[in-house]
Amino acid sequence: MIQFYSPDIESTGVLPETESGHCCRVLRMKEGDTVYVTDGKGHRFECSILDAHPKHTALEILTMEEIKPWWGFQLELCVAPAKNADRMEWLVEKAVEIGVDKITLMKCQRSERKTLRTDRLEKIAISAMNQSLKTNRTVIEGPVDFKNIVTDGFSGFKCLGYCDDTYPLRSFANEYHGGNLRILIGPEGDFTPEEVAMSVENGYMPVTFGGSRLRLETAALYAAVAAHVIGDPKA
Amino acid sequence: MIQFYSPDIESTGVLPETESGHCCRVLRMKEGDTVYVTDGKGHRFECSILDAHPKHTALEILTMEEIKPWWGFQLELCVAPAKNADRMEWLVEKAVEIGVDKITLMKCQRSERKTLRTDRLEKIAISAMNQSLKTNRTVIEGPVDFKNIVTDGFSGFKCLGYCDDTYPLRSFANEYHGGNLRILIGPEGDFTPEEVAMSVENGYMPVTFGGSRLRLETAALYAAVAAHVIGDPKA
Repeated sequence: MIQFYSPDIESTGVLPETESGHCCRVLRMKEGDTVYVTDGKGHRFECSILDAHPKHTALEILTMEEIKPWWGFQLELCVAPAKNADRMEWLVEKAVEIGVDKITLMKCQRSERKTLRTDRLEKIAISAMNQSLKTNRTVIEGPVDFKNIVTDGFSGFKCLGYCDDTYPLRSFANEYHGGNLRILIGPEGDFTPEEVAMSVENGYMPVTFGGSRLRLETAALYAAVAAHVIGDPKA
Repeated sequence: MIQFYSPDIESTGVLPETESGHCCRVLRMKEGDTVYVTDGKGHRFECSILDAHPKHTALEILTMEEIKPWWGFQLELCVAPAKNADRMEWLVEKAVEIGVDKITLMKCQRSERKTLRTDRLEKIAISAMNQSLKTNRTVIEGPVDFKNIVTDGFSGFKCLGYCDDTYPLRSFANEYHGGNLRILIGPEGDFTPEEVAMSVENGYMPVTFGGSRLRLETAALYAAVAAHVIGDPKA
């Protein structure tokens, strides 16, 4: 099964240019072929190709299916962009494949990279959504200041990856029991004591992810999988 | 804390050439500096630099610490190499960071890549071992024929990632309850019915890893993290 993305498929009946190119040039699909299309808003459409145009492929919608994220809770990763942009792109691909609702790029005091192009990350997220046959687009947001994130009143289990000993070390896998979840992963230089204190004041729990010292993108992925293993009925 | 790898540190008291270069050229460490060295066999040595030679750094061993893999069970990933070698290198880095004892490259009937240079994967595994401060080197083996793997009498929970409906779909997270574990992840083209049947005859359980259709390297990572979350007392 091959899935394409067209946010306005219902109104336009057309694939965007990049998806049209992939469908007709790369995959050589023709008039009459059946394709599956998601609007990224929880719907998958079974379609028949009317015009296999490599820039604006026209489709006839045959059926529509509504598919909610099956994990059934809001799963948010807030990550300080890694120095190495490739590692962030990899993280976005993997996190979307595994299933997260939102990835926020977080500006921390010790962030070595303050900005990162989100347009490229969004392309990767869409491709991973199609690859893993999801129908809800993962929101990519930011960069957002750490302070704005921890003070926005998110309701659910809130934690940050931390391995200093200022706070008692608690394991994420022991503390999280399901439900809405937000995980903060700090920069290579780690959170500052002020940031940790501010997050704790706002209801965030410093947690560890396993017994290893993990790179930030590995910690974020570990957290995403652990969240599914613990809270996702389909895990 | 910076850790280097020297398999024969106890007998030679010297870092290998690549590690010496990293220590003295890249990190500019000097005589008298303290460094940590693992032999990859469960020991970490606190050492003082006697001669900061960029090709054969000489060390004095101050203390030795024995560190066993804390997860306390044998964790083996057997993976059919991905078409894209980068994805395998990424998988090895991440799997070693998270903590696996052995990664076997598996030759399957539908493998699109039959061979893969293991020397480069071993370099990546050593670097990830040092990065994540482990002291037991992850064994990289293969390529090994699928048949030889499933018939070698491994004792523990044995499963293979599978999403066809020939066998009842069981979730890895529901079926695995800790202890020695071997996970088989098939090629892009999936296992053949013959391979699945042969593995089942040999005590392997077809399992799913979450509700998504995952790329093979993502499935392997999901499996490694899930194994730690379920079976690792430090998870």
